[in-house]
Parts: sequence; C-alpha cells; structure tokens
Amino acid sequence: MNALKTWAAPHRAAVEAALGGLFHDAWPAPFGAMCRYPLLTGGKRIRPLFAFAAYEAVSGTPDDRDGAMAAALAVELIHTYSLVHDDLPCMDDDDERRGKPTVHIEYGENNAVLVGDALLTEAFRVLARASAPAAEVRLRLVEELSAASGYLGMIGGQARDVGVGGPVTEADDLIGLHDRKTGQLIRSAGRMGALCGGADESQLAALTDYAEAVGLAFQLADDLLDLDEDTDEPSFPKLLGVEATRERCAALSARAQAAVAGFERAEPLRMLARYTIERTI
Amino acid sequence: MNALKTWAAPHRAAVEAALGGLFHDAWPAPFGAMCRYPLLTGGKRIRPLFAFAAYEAVSGTPDDRDGAMAAALAVELIHTYSLVHDDLPCMDDDDERRGKPTVHIEYGENNAVLVGDALLTEAFRVLARASAPAAEVRLRLVEELSAASGYLGMIGGQARDVGVGGPVTEADDLIGLHDRKTGQLIRSAGRMGALCGGADESQLAALTDYAEAVGLAFQLADDLLDLDEDTDEPSFPKLLGVEATRERCAALSARAQAAVAGFERAEPLRMLARYTIERTI
Repeated sequence: MNALKTWAAPHRAAVEAALGGLFHDAWPAPFGAMCRYPLLTGGKRIRPLFAFAAYEAVSGTPDDRDGAMAAALAVELIHTYSLVHDDLPCMDDDDERRGKPTVHIEYGENNAVLVGDALLTEAFRVLARASAPAAEVRLRLVEELSAASGYLGMIGGQARDVGVGGPVTEADDLIGLHDRKTGQLIRSAGRMGALCGGADESQLAALTDYAEAVGLAFQLADDLLDLDEDTDEPSFPKLLGVEATRERCAALSARAQAAVAGFERAEPLRMLARYTIERTI
Repeated sequence: MNALKTWAAPHRAAVEAALGGLFHDAWPAPFGAMCRYPLLTGGKRIRPLFAFAAYEAVSGTPDDRDGAMAAALAVELIHTYSLVHDDLPCMDDDDERRGKPTVHIEYGENNAVLVGDALLTEAFRVLARASAPAAEVRLRLVEELSAASGYLGMIGGQARDVGVGGPVTEADDLIGLHDRKTGQLIRSAGRMGALCGGADESQLAALTDYAEAVGLAFQLADDLLDLDEDTDEPSFPKLLGVEATRERCAALSARAQAAVAGFERAEPLRMLARYTIERTI
C-alpha cells in the first residue's frame, strides 16, 4: 500500500484544504461551522482519489488539476451529505460516525437536514464556479453528478434500501441496489475526473467499465468483511454463498484491471482497484 | 386579476404537464410516484410565472421558451423540495399541505427525506439537460440557482429561521432572514428567466431590483395577512408596527413598478407584482 499512500497523500491534503475552505461566508455564521463539521472528520476521500486517478490516466498535465479538484470536491460533498441524511433518526439512526457524534446529535435533527441540503446544493455550485474545464464540460459534469446522485442513482438505491419496492431477495436486485446506492457515485467520480482530463468517448467507456467493476466489487468486499455480523440485511454471501461471492469479486478485480490496460498512466487506478477489492480476497 | 389569469393559464398548464412528466423512469418504480406526489398538489406556480414573465420582458419570442421552461421547472423543484423538508417532524411538523397529507405522513419520514433530496438534485439535472439556452448560459443558471437555494440563500434563511444565530429581534435581521428564505429564490426565478431570454447586464440589474422589492413585499404582505394569528414568531408588524409595515409595502410596490418601467413587454411582471403585493394594501 505504500505506493498508493505516496501517490494519494498530496491529493488528500489538497482535498482537505479545499474542503476546509468552504462555507466560511455563511449567514448565519454558525451555520458555516455546522456545514464544515461532517466534511472534516477524516474520511478516506476514496471518491476524490478516483477522480484524480482517472484525470491523470487520460491527461498529461497532473499539475493543472483545477477541474479535477472541482469534480473531486463535488463528489465528496455529495457523499458527505448522503451520510448526514443517512444517519438521521428516521433513516439509520446513528449517533456516531468516525468516532464523533453525528450531525444531528451535535447540532439537532433540524440542522442536520439543512446541513445535508446545503452540502448537496454546494456540490453543484462548486462545479458551476470552477475555473476549469470549459463551460460545456462543466455542464456535462453537472449532468453526470445529478444523474449519479439523484433518483436514477444514489437516492434510488437508498429508497430501495429502506424498503421501497419490497424486500430484496434476489442477487440481481441487490446488485441493482448497490450499483445505485454506492456504485454510480464512484463511477461518476472516475468519469468526471476523466472528462476534466479531456477523455474521448472510448477512454470514458473504458473508465466506466473499470469503475463499474470496482464499485460492485467494493460492495461484495464489504459484505465479505461483514460476514460475522449478525444482521437481517440482505447480503451477497447470503444470496450467492461465500465462495461464489469471493469468485465474483476476483472476476470483477480482473475486469477492472483489464479495462484500464490501454492507459499509459493507469498505475493509480490499478492501485485503487487493488486497495478497494483485494483487501478481502 | 382576469388579465393575469388569462396570461398565466397556458404557462401554468405547461408547467403542470412538464412536472407530471418527471420521475417516470424511477428505480424502484414506486419511488417515482412518491417524488411526483408533492409536485402535483395544485400549487400556484408563482416562481415559474416570474421566470416566464421575466423571459417575455426581455425576449421577443414567447413561443420558443424551452430554456425558460427548464428554469421554471428547476425553481419549482427547489421550492417543492424545501416544502417537503420543512414539513418534516423535526422542522415544522406539518401533517397537511394544501388539504392533503404531507409526504412524511403519506410515505414515511425516511422517504420524505429522500424525496426532498431527489427533487433538489433533479432541479440541477433539468438545467443540465435542457435543449436551451446555450451551455454557458445554462451553467450560469446552475450557479444562480445553487447560490439562491444554498447556504448563502434559502437554506441559510431556514437555518436562521430555526434559531441558528439566536433569536430574531431586529427588523433588519428579519429582512435578512426573509430575503434569504424566500426572496432569493423568487429573485433567481426572474433572473434565470431573463437570462434565458438573452438579458444584458443592465436588464438583469433592473429585474433583480424588481424581484428584490417583490420578494420582500411578499413577506411583508404575508405578515399583514397573518396579523390576527396568535404566535410567538417575529413579524414585521410586531417589529415595525402595522402602519410602517403597510407603508414599506407600498414603497416596495412602487419600487418594483419603477424598476421595470424601461421594458416594453413588462405587463406580466407588473401584474405579478400587483398580485403579490396589493392583495393586502
């Protein structure tokens, strides 16, 4: 993991700094601190890293990354808002996240709803105000992100997860759920980074294939890590069996690596795929 | 009001039809019906009407209004999501809106959070996917709407309204609250409509002045209508006195009419200002 850490460290530091710079002009002022609270609790910033890795894979200019940074921040804002709303008492009812009180515990449930709404909205403002890429590409980023995080993507997956459409009893249904709940945002991180780097449609298709495999494998791997947990939640090991889940995870890993074989600077993508998947197989 | 109704009727019908066409491709399918439920409860569509009126004031082509329609839908999606989240038990805890059960009563609190998130996100997708205006202008619409509805605008006003920053005891503070909570979205509706019509910066400034006056007057008028209500909420009649509130409302009305005096096709804007303000003075 050392090569991955070495590559990721400056990107992570830049993301932390940029996130810490948000919401300082809030009115009323204390609301700005409430919005920064869930953003600065030491997440792994996996989605921003996918954006930077995809950007670098298609672009020869890793230093000129203003557009990729905007994409990275927007995706992290969306991810963070989804956690804030997910933690609410009417959703997962979680009191702690990463060892700290969740937003509704710290600031009250009404403010947690508003903080989530503010982070969501700010994601699109960040894209609209970015200095790069060109306006037409930034508009496409808005479309990518709103599709991946909206009712066709993340929110649809969450609705399915809280029971809309009935219980999940089939592996294909669970794949559909996770593809939307977590997969599409990871995929859009990669696609947005690649678009910022000037990817053509064939590069974009390869990265989409890569990210789809990684996103699903991420969930399979998570389910394998949670094997010992006693829960009623549907999971891939329960629906497919442990061995078949492991095999499918390995196949997805191979598919992800093959998808980016044609890129010259794909080592960060390859490392991220390995980190995401191979921690469990 | 007959001239206003005659002008508004086809716009309203078009907005209803367009809103009714949203979310039909949802997964899981029942979630699409949940998202349409709060959109189709017979609102007055005031914000879309401001967008169309501003569009017509600056554009000679009232029939080619695809861009203005996208702006109108986006603003109405934002307005509707804010009602869904406002009605939640942790916010205003309202069981009914427009004579029907609120979303969390009808579908549960968790789904109401998700429906609000979905409507918010879809507002930006509608702008990104619109066939008009040009990409650069649509990106500016994304920036306008995200600023007006985010932590610098509507959400900031709501945070102040639920008590962030302490109690509201001064008229200026209450003006700041309402300017953000309701004024900015109304203003952005007008500005976005005007941008779709190709407004230059001086036209945009005049419309902004108009909409700022109308937005604030709307709230003063609301407070005057609610005079008899026995509540602890701060209000302009309480902080300024009834007569001074009436006078300020009349001054804002005059300011709104003066701001659009230079437009040739401003009759819809003039009628909307009269409707908004003069119902109470």
